[in-house]
Amino acid sequence: MSDQHVFTVRTRGQGLYEFTGQIREFVTENEVESGLLTLFVQHTSCSILVQENADPSVQDDLREFFSRIVPSGDSKAMNWLTHTFEGPDDMPAHIKSALTPTSISIPIMSGNVALGQWQGVYIFEHRDLPMTRRIAAHISH
Amino acid sequence: MSDQHVFTVRTRGQGLYEFTGQIREFVTENEVESGLLTLFVQHTSCSILVQENADPSVQDDLREFFSRIVPSGDSKAMNWLTHTFEGPDDMPAHIKSALTPTSISIPIMSGNVALGQWQGVYIFEHRDLPMTRRIAAHISH
Amino acid sequence: MSDQHVFTVRTRGQGLYEFTGQIREFVTENEVESGLLTLFVQHTSCSILVQENADPSVQDDLREFFSRIVPSGDSKAMNWLTHTFEGPDDMPAHIKSALTPTSISIPIMSGNVALGQWQGVYIFEHRDLPMTRRIAAHISH
Repeated sequence: MSDQHVFTVRTRGQGLYEFTGQIREFVTENEVESGLLTLFVQHTSCSILVQENADPSVQDDLREFFSRIVPSGDSKAMNWLTHTFEGPDDMPAHIKSALTPTSISIPIMSGNVALGQWQGVYIFEHRDLPMTRRIAAHISH
Repeated sequence: MSDQHVFTVRTRGQGLYEFTGQIREFVTENEVESGLLTLFVQHTSCSILVQENADPSVQDDLREFFSRIVPSGDSKAMNWLTHTFEGPDDMPAHIKSALTPTSISIPIMSGNVALGQWQGVYIFEHRDLPMTRRIAAHISH
Repeated sequence: MSDQHVFTVRTRGQGLYEFTGQIREFVTENEVESGLLTLFVQHTSCSILVQENADPSVQDDLREFFSRIVPSGDSKAMNWLTHTFEGPDDMPAHIKSALTPTSISIPIMSGNVALGQWQGVYIFEHRDLPMTRRIAAHISH
């Protein structure tokens, strides 16, 4: 298997979508004992988050916090926006994307990504409509 | 050409400054078919953002949002600041720098940085005065 | 010395804890002339920040800003939280972790990490109780 891959993750509205399993599989198939995995999301309206995967309420609260700090473009609090023609969720999505990671790098140790015990890897979707998100992945040896 | 380079970007006040062209040139000159480009900004009062480069109003709104969430140090909302002797834009600049990326890694695939269709790479300047910003770049093969 | 290492940093409540010295030592012992250092924190309630290490008041103001934008879970402003059973500092810690980096990559140039003149590397602790934090480090050549 190549040490590069483009993952796709399908999303259905704002929130977190885990794809840790796909990542572990990619690393295992490459039979890398020691290296570095980098993930880069090829969009400006979603992000990559490493977050707790034990309790789903963490993901709900994360989505809610970002909706409060960056309200919808049709709310009074955001009446200063100028980039509005792509819909009320578009410019807030770019802002949330600036506030959260576009790339993440995780060491590969003893043949596995060195995630902590409670860490999962997520696409954090900031748009409302269903999307297919592309994440470019590279393993450095 | 070496697989390391220090880019410089000149800024003239707060806002986004694109340098995607410099990056593409660096990757092309290295004739890398497959690898990883990492960018690291050597300052604590500006950031590196990957953002939409189709419509300039996105950049205006990003700058405006960060000015609202981190107001100028001489505003009433920020009267709790203690680090004030470097000017009203200095500590807000450090805060904005903490909220946005200091390093970004982008896979190189088929000889090009694997940016999405609408993605450009920017210095996000948080200071008011003109600055020359240094970005350390490294290509892993 | 291996080109991988897991750093530990002990924290005693919310705030910034510098470990630049440990990083420089790791790079020096590896005798890397040119490469890339990546740091990845194996937790979802603290972050890695590259910030100014000249004036400690910068660190105080950063901690204060994040406490204001993400108040404690027992405050009225956060009464919408659902993930509360791990204590009033837990869900705010996950949110602060989403707003700040989980991984950072820094080029190694001329045998040293290419930090700017005023840059130090910190664990940004978001929990109240003493913690031992693990940071997985990898050097790409």
